[in-house]
Amino acid sequence: MESRKKRHPGLVLSRRLRQTPFESRVIEQGAKAFTIYNQMPLASYFRSLKEDYDHLCEHVQIWDVSCERQVEIVGPDALALTELITPRDISRCDIGQCMYAPLVDENGGIVNDPIILRLEQDRFWLSIADSGVMLWVKGIAYGRGFDVEVFEPDVSPLAIQGPRSDDLMAELLGEHVRDIPFFRFIRSRLAETSFYIARSGWSGQGGFEIYLEEFSKGEGLWDCIWDAGQKYSIRAGCPNLIDRIEKGLLSYGSDMRLESNPYECGLDRFFGETKQAECMSSDALAAIWARGPSTRLVCLAVEGEPLTSPRNTCPVLDEAGRRRGYVTSLAHSTRFGANLAIATVDAEVSADGQTLSVDTGGPVLSRAVVKSSFWK
Amino acid sequence: MESRKKRHPGLVLSRRLRQTPFESRVIEQGAKAFTIYNQMPLASYFRSLKEDYDHLCEHVQIWDVSCERQVEIVGPDALALTELITPRDISRCDIGQCMYAPLVDENGGIVNDPIILRLEQDRFWLSIADSGVMLWVKGIAYGRGFDVEVFEPDVSPLAIQGPRSDDLMAELLGEHVRDIPFFRFIRSRLAETSFYIARSGWSGQGGFEIYLEEFSKGEGLWDCIWDAGQKYSIRAGCPNLIDRIEKGLLSYGSDMRLESNPYECGLDRFFGETKQAECMSSDALAAIWARGPSTRLVCLAVEGEPLTSPRNTCPVLDEAGRRRGYVTSLAHSTRFGANLAIATVDAEVSADGQTLSVDTGGPVLSRAVVKSSFWK
Repeated sequence: MESRKKRHPGLVLSRRLRQTPFESRVIEQGAKAFTIYNQMPLASYFRSLKEDYDHLCEHVQIWDVSCERQVEIVGPDALALTELITPRDISRCDIGQCMYAPLVDENGGIVNDPIILRLEQDRFWLSIADSGVMLWVKGIAYGRGFDVEVFEPDVSPLAIQGPRSDDLMAELLGEHVRDIPFFRFIRSRLAETSFYIARSGWSGQGGFEIYLEEFSKGEGLWDCIWDAGQKYSIRAGCPNLIDRIEKGLLSYGSDMRLESNPYECGLDRFFGETKQAECMSSDALAAIWARGPSTRLVCLAVEGEPLTSPRNTCPVLDEAGRRRGYVTSLAHSTRFGANLAIATVDAEVSADGQTLSVDTGGPVLSRAVVKSSFWK
Repeated sequence: MESRKKRHPGLVLSRRLRQTPFESRVIEQGAKAFTIYNQMPLASYFRSLKEDYDHLCEHVQIWDVSCERQVEIVGPDALALTELITPRDISRCDIGQCMYAPLVDENGGIVNDPIILRLEQDRFWLSIADSGVMLWVKGIAYGRGFDVEVFEPDVSPLAIQGPRSDDLMAELLGEHVRDIPFFRFIRSRLAETSFYIARSGWSGQGGFEIYLEEFSKGEGLWDCIWDAGQKYSIRAGCPNLIDRIEKGLLSYGSDMRLESNPYECGLDRFFGETKQAECMSSDALAAIWARGPSTRLVCLAVEGEPLTSPRNTCPVLDEAGRRRGYVTSLAHSTRFGANLAIATVDAEVSADGQTLSVDTGGPVLSRAVVKSSFWK
């Protein structure tokens, strides 16, 4: 096995890789490694993936997810523009509601998969994954002459995740936060700053996301939550690879890209029959649906020794040894006693129970079985 | 001084941060740290900034700059679209020519500063800095209904830089490569792959960039150049912070952003009076020019002990102690016996010889003097 040093070379953070409002605290809390996401650092783990995961499932964590940048669309044409870029029916989104909405281009390719927050009738935030959505939306708005402004506001999300999130946030903000339904948000205030707080977050353990709107108030906000969190055994954390694969939270860039379409990735469940005709992807999606997607994103239980996420493309083979796809994400789950993978495979070998194998670069292939659903 | 470990936390490379065709060789050659650029790893240094710099100025280096992604614009409206997105007069660009062309939005903000290569009459590559240009251009093309295709081709630049570049490449490709003029490119072939090779590169030491079009041929191409380079003392390298600041090579994201305009950054020298009226930024640039830019990007010679590039914003003060700007890039140059900085300062304190000071976070301010030109 490679040494940790080899697996994690040093990361040089220049001004180009923008500082987050919480960065000093993340470093103080001992983040051992980072990734870069939307030109911002994001911690990858603190103690180990496994230790972080175990803690997340039992206690409460505070995550600097500033890298989930916001793209604000505001103005008379805000709804029309937002409806153009996603097949999801955004007209049904209430003010105060979040919607997971894949952005799809005119060829049916996935541009990003943000959470859309409707702040006002004509004002949205797209809380984005790692691709240049702001320029995409701004380019379309310019090209079509929409009466909107599109920009990246000074907003940095801070996630509070884990089963004790409600207790902690109720203590800080009031009992009413327990009543925020899933994917709804309210206005609140703490540590001299006002913000939206949503019941959401990129984990399977529940919690909240606070959308800090004043960079300079970041450390104060973190400290306030940190201090109150001591009695709940709070720790600094970050999106956890094991947790997100178990729960089927897809990572744009890893599990899907512009080359992917929503049907391949199972994202059509978010629009399906209510796909609105106004979207730019409408014709392309109809054509893809008519011919049927040629590949599918599936869960694979991979047998054998614990595996770590590979750097190289990791081929998936059928029983005849033919290449039928590749792994896009991989982590070992102690809870489920297996290596859990997300993989793109040919549609004809994507059925539940299908036996495949994965070439992890070792001397023998690892047997793998397709699962019809994630490990929830 | 912080320890190296603290300055360079680990970097986790997932599938989202795309592999380059030369990555195995860069790791073999001992890159000590990386940055992420357009969702791809880019080495930051191999031995030290200073050692890498000294070698680059005397010998020849091979750089994996795959992260300079290409945005291809092809089709009947390719020239019209390219002229829309930059104030530079692209109609003057010959086939086989490169042009440095800031991309400027409808408000006069800098979107990116690519090198544009004209491959055919109606076919361009934008060799981009670190921002989502592909989606920007694709969004405008969609919005305006241009008859073009916009996509990221499988192209990975490999730079050969340093004073012995000509000798090495002449040996491999033929004596005619010595005659390639600056910012011109030709078609060539090596290691079973054909490519464009340009006299260009992000250093002040001269050299070439090879645009590899077949990912799978990357290691073979690297090895072929590596072997021939032994007698020229070739080393693996990467864009060098000291060299690029000395030469005034601006880094998008560090020295300029969407909030910057070309006049502030001195980029108007690339279009000036020949600014073409067809560009989307035409009106905004005229308005900015009429009122005069309020800030200027300047070179600062900063006195005192050798400094390293700061993570935090590093304020620039005037003699009365008022904040007048901030450092955007900083490195120590042994050759010039000074800390060389690039800084954004108020226009009224931007004249050559102006005395300022820089707050580097230490107990005393460092005296700094504005220089009218870079250290070439």
